[in-house]
Amino acid sequence: MNVDVGEGLGVWTVGNDLPFLAIATSVNIACGFHAGDPQIMDKTVAAAMDAGVAIGAHPGFRDLHGFGRREMTTDPAEVEAEVLYQVGALAAFARAHGSRLTHVKPHGALYNQAARDPVLARALASAVRRAGEELVLVGLASSLAMRRAAEAEGLRFAAEAFADRAYEADGSLRSRRSPGAVLSDPETAARQAVRLARDGRVASWEGSEISLSADTLCVHGDNPDGLAIARAVRLALEAEGITVSAFSR
Amino acid sequence: MNVDVGEGLGVWTVGNDLPFLAIATSVNIACGFHAGDPQIMDKTVAAAMDAGVAIGAHPGFRDLHGFGRREMTTDPAEVEAEVLYQVGALAAFARAHGSRLTHVKPHGALYNQAARDPVLARALASAVRRAGEELVLVGLASSLAMRRAAEAEGLRFAAEAFADRAYEADGSLRSRRSPGAVLSDPETAARQAVRLARDGRVASWEGSEISLSADTLCVHGDNPDGLAIARAVRLALEAEGITVSAFSR
Amino acid sequence: MNVDVGEGLGVWTVGNDLPFLAIATSVNIACGFHAGDPQIMDKTVAAAMDAGVAIGAHPGFRDLHGFGRREMTTDPAEVEAEVLYQVGALAAFARAHGSRLTHVKPHGALYNQAARDPVLARALASAVRRAGEELVLVGLASSLAMRRAAEAEGLRFAAEAFADRAYEADGSLRSRRSPGAVLSDPETAARQAVRLARDGRVASWEGSEISLSADTLCVHGDNPDGLAIARAVRLALEAEGITVSAFSR
Amino acid sequence: MNVDVGEGLGVWTVGNDLPFLAIATSVNIACGFHAGDPQIMDKTVAAAMDAGVAIGAHPGFRDLHGFGRREMTTDPAEVEAEVLYQVGALAAFARAHGSRLTHVKPHGALYNQAARDPVLARALASAVRRAGEELVLVGLASSLAMRRAAEAEGLRFAAEAFADRAYEADGSLRSRRSPGAVLSDPETAARQAVRLARDGRVASWEGSEISLSADTLCVHGDNPDGLAIARAVRLALEAEGITVSAFSR
Repeated sequence: MNVDVGEGLGVWTVGNDLPFLAIATSVNIACGFHAGDPQIMDKTVAAAMDAGVAIGAHPGFRDLHGFGRREMTTDPAEVEAEVLYQVGALAAFARAHGSRLTHVKPHGALYNQAARDPVLARALASAVRRAGEELVLVGLASSLAMRRAAEAEGLRFAAEAFADRAYEADGSLRSRRSPGAVLSDPETAARQAVRLARDGRVASWEGSEISLSADTLCVHGDNPDGLAIARAVRLALEAEGITVSAFSR
Repeated sequence: MNVDVGEGLGVWTVGNDLPFLAIATSVNIACGFHAGDPQIMDKTVAAAMDAGVAIGAHPGFRDLHGFGRREMTTDPAEVEAEVLYQVGALAAFARAHGSRLTHVKPHGALYNQAARDPVLARALASAVRRAGEELVLVGLASSLAMRRAAEAEGLRFAAEAFADRAYEADGSLRSRRSPGAVLSDPETAARQAVRLARDGRVASWEGSEISLSADTLCVHGDNPDGLAIARAVRLALEAEGITVSAFSR
Repeated sequence: MNVDVGEGLGVWTVGNDLPFLAIATSVNIACGFHAGDPQIMDKTVAAAMDAGVAIGAHPGFRDLHGFGRREMTTDPAEVEAEVLYQVGALAAFARAHGSRLTHVKPHGALYNQAARDPVLARALASAVRRAGEELVLVGLASSLAMRRAAEAEGLRFAAEAFADRAYEADGSLRSRRSPGAVLSDPETAARQAVRLARDGRVASWEGSEISLSADTLCVHGDNPDGLAIARAVRLALEAEGITVSAFSR
Repeated sequence: MNVDVGEGLGVWTVGNDLPFLAIATSVNIACGFHAGDPQIMDKTVAAAMDAGVAIGAHPGFRDLHGFGRREMTTDPAEVEAEVLYQVGALAAFARAHGSRLTHVKPHGALYNQAARDPVLARALASAVRRAGEELVLVGLASSLAMRRAAEAEGLRFAAEAFADRAYEADGSLRSRRSPGAVLSDPETAARQAVRLARDGRVASWEGSEISLSADTLCVHGDNPDGLAIARAVRLALEAEGITVSAFSR
C-alpha cells in the first residue's frame, strides 16, 4: 500500500500526512516540481523513517499552478533530466536521515502520459536507472509502455492499481475531469482493493470486468475521504489474510 | 582556480562555458534556484568531466528573477533544506556520469549573507555536511563566520579570493552596486591573482593593503571580459611557478 | 474594515473568504506574486462585487514559497514595475466585472519594508499613482515614509491599524517571528479595534500607551480565529456607534 | 508588420529589440508568463512609444522553462483568466506611459493550440474582449477557430502570416521541431512576404501553393537572422508599393 505525501507548498499545507504513515507501507514524497518544498521534504522523510515505511520519490512536471496534472508536450531528454533532478534531491534528504530511497513513482500527468507513451516512459525509466539501479519503478498496472521501459533499463517494475479511482475498460484510469473518477465510499474502495489484491481483477466504470495484476495499491491523501478509505482498505486486506509489505531495494 | 558555470535557464543561455573548462581547475554548477535547469546541469556535468575539472555545486536563493543576488531574510532551517535539495540534485547528475561532487560554493546573496551571519553560515555548512562529509565548503576568505561554521560541521574550508573583484578594506567584496566593483582589465586581474596566491595580500579599493590567505581563486564567466581575464590569470600564476590544482574529496 | 482575501494558489486554498466579505467593507485581493492566481482573482473580484465591498489590490514581493513575508534587498525601479504589473492585472479583472479598484495595500514584507524605507515607499506610491491617481494607498498608520510618499505622488493615504496584531512601542507591528505577535482572542481584538477607532490609541506590547490615528482597520483571513475576530470587531464598533464604510475613489 | 519583443527575463536578455522597433509597425510585448518581466515590460512600452509603433500584448502559457512552447492540456476558464491577467498587466504599463494597447497576439503553444481548438480560441477571445472590446485579436491566418472566436466575441481579427516560417499544406505552421521550420535567408523570407501581401498566396513546405489571406506579417526577433530578415521584408514590401501600417484601435 502506497500513498502520496508531502504535497503542500510553503504556507499551503494539505491536511495531515501523519495518519497515513501509520496505514500505508510505502510513501511517495513530492519533490518540489508539482508540490512539496525542501523543508517539507526534509520533515516528511524524517516522519516516514519514524513510521518505518519505505520512502520513494514522487517527481512530476514543473507545474505548481496545475499541481502537475496538466499534460504537456515534452522533450524526453528534458523530462529525463527533470526526473533525475527531483529524485536526486529527495535521495539527499533520505541519505542525510540515514535512509535510502526504495522506489520512484511519477505524479499526475507525467504518470499518465508515460503510461501511454513508450518514448516518455523510457526517458523516465532512464532517469530512475541513472538515479539508482536498485530503485523500483512504479507505474500503471495496465501500461505496457512503463513495464517495458523498466525492463529495458534493468529496473524492477511495480504494477500499481488504485483502490479509490475508477477504471476504464482498457485498464486506464478514468480521467479526473470525468464524473465518478474518484471513489469516495470507503467500503467500495475496500472491496475494489480486495478484488485487485486477491483476484487480480477489477470492475470497470461501465461494468465490464477487467484483469489487472497489481504489485502495489495506491490510496490518496488528497482525497477528502482518504484516511477513512486507507483504513478501510488496510483492514479489508488484512481480513482477507493478505500481507501488506513495503517496497524494498 | 574556480569558475561559476551552467548559469543559463531554458532558452536563455549566457555565453559559452566550454572555454572556461579548459582554464579553470574546478567549476561551480548552478543548481536551478538562481539559474540553471536540470538539462543544463546534466550537460554541464558531462562537459566538466570531459574537461577533467573538479565538479562542485553552486546553490543559491530561490530567485530566478534576481539571479540570486537579492539579499533576503531567511529561516535558517529553510536555507539548510534548500541547499541540501540543490546539492543533492546536482550530486545525482555527477553520480549518473560516474563522478562525485568535490565542493559546494554558495552563490550571490547567499554567499555574501553567510559570510556575515554565523547562524546562516552554520545552516549552510550543516546542509553541506548532510550532503557529504567529504565535501569542501568554499567561502569568502575573510569570513570568520564561514570558516568557523565549516569547522563546527567537520568540513574542510576553502578560503576564496577573487581575481576580478575589488575589495573593501575589511576584506569584504565591494558591492556590485558600487562603481569599480568588477575588474575588467585582464592584466589588473592577473596581478591581483598573483599577489593573492603568492603573497596572501591584495590592495583594497581605497588603496590600503590587506592580508588575505586564499585557497582558491574565482574568475567570472558572466563577466564580459571573463575569458580574457581567466586566461591572463592562469598564465600569470604559471609564470610565477604557482601550481593550480583542482579540489579533491 | 479591510481584509486580505484570495490568498490561495492553484489547488491550495486557504479557508473560505466568503464569510469575511459579509463583515469587512473593503477587501485586498492577492495579485499572484505572494499568493493568488488569475482564476482566484477573477472569482474573488466577482464575489467581492456580489458582497458590495470595495476592491483593492494586495501586491507583494515575488515570493510564493515565502508567502511574500521575506524581506529582501530591492531595486526600487524593479519594485515599482512589479507593483504596477500586479495592480494592472487585478484592475483588468475589476473592469471586466464592471467595477474599479479603490485602493492598493502592499502585502507582508513589502508593506513592512516600505513603512521604514522612504525610497521604497516612494517607488510603491509611484507605481500606485501610475496605476491610477484616484487610488487610495493603504499603509502602516505610524509610517511617515508611507504617508509622505503618498503625498508626494498626490495620492490619498489611508493609515491602517490592526485589530489582531500586537504593536511595539514605536507604533510598528510586532514581528510575526516574535511571541504574542498575533492576537487570537476576539474580545481582545475587539477592544483594541474600539480603542483605535474611537480614541486613536492602542496599548503596545510592553504596556505603554501609543497614539495611532487610523483610517482603516485590518482583520486577518489567514488567522485561524480570523472570522470570530472579524465578527467581534464589527459588532464592537457598531455597538460604539462607529460607522464602518468602504474605501471610495 | 509585427514583431515579438521584450522576451528576456531578469539578467537574461535576448539580443536587442530596438532595431526592430524601427522596422516593424506593431510590436507584441511578452507579459511575464513565457518571458518578460515587469521592468522589461515598462522599458519596452516606453521604447515602443518612442518608436511610434502600435503596442500589443503577447500572452503565453505559464512556462518560463519552456518559453511557452510546450503544448498542454488546459482548463479554458483558467486560460481565460491567465490571458486577462497578462493583458491587464501590460495595459497598465501602456496607460502609465500615456498609450493604449491596440492588439493581443497569443504566444507559442497558446497560439498554436488556439488555432486548432475552438474552445480554447473562444476562451482566449473572451479574455481579450473582457480586456477591451476595441482590441484586435491576432491569430493564424488559416485558423477558422480563431477567426470565429473573434467574431463571436465581437472583436476584429487580424489574420497573421509569417515571412520567416515554413508552412504545411494545410496552412498551419511547420513545427519548430521539424527541419526547415524557420527560414534563415532574408531574400527567401522577403519573397514569401511579398507573395503573401500582394497575392495572398504562399508555397508550402512540400511545394504546393496555398491561398492565405493575411492582414499582418510577423518577423521574429529571436531568430539569429531576424534583423536582416525584417529589413529585407520591409524593403521588399515597399519596393512593391505595399503600404505597411500599424494596428489601430
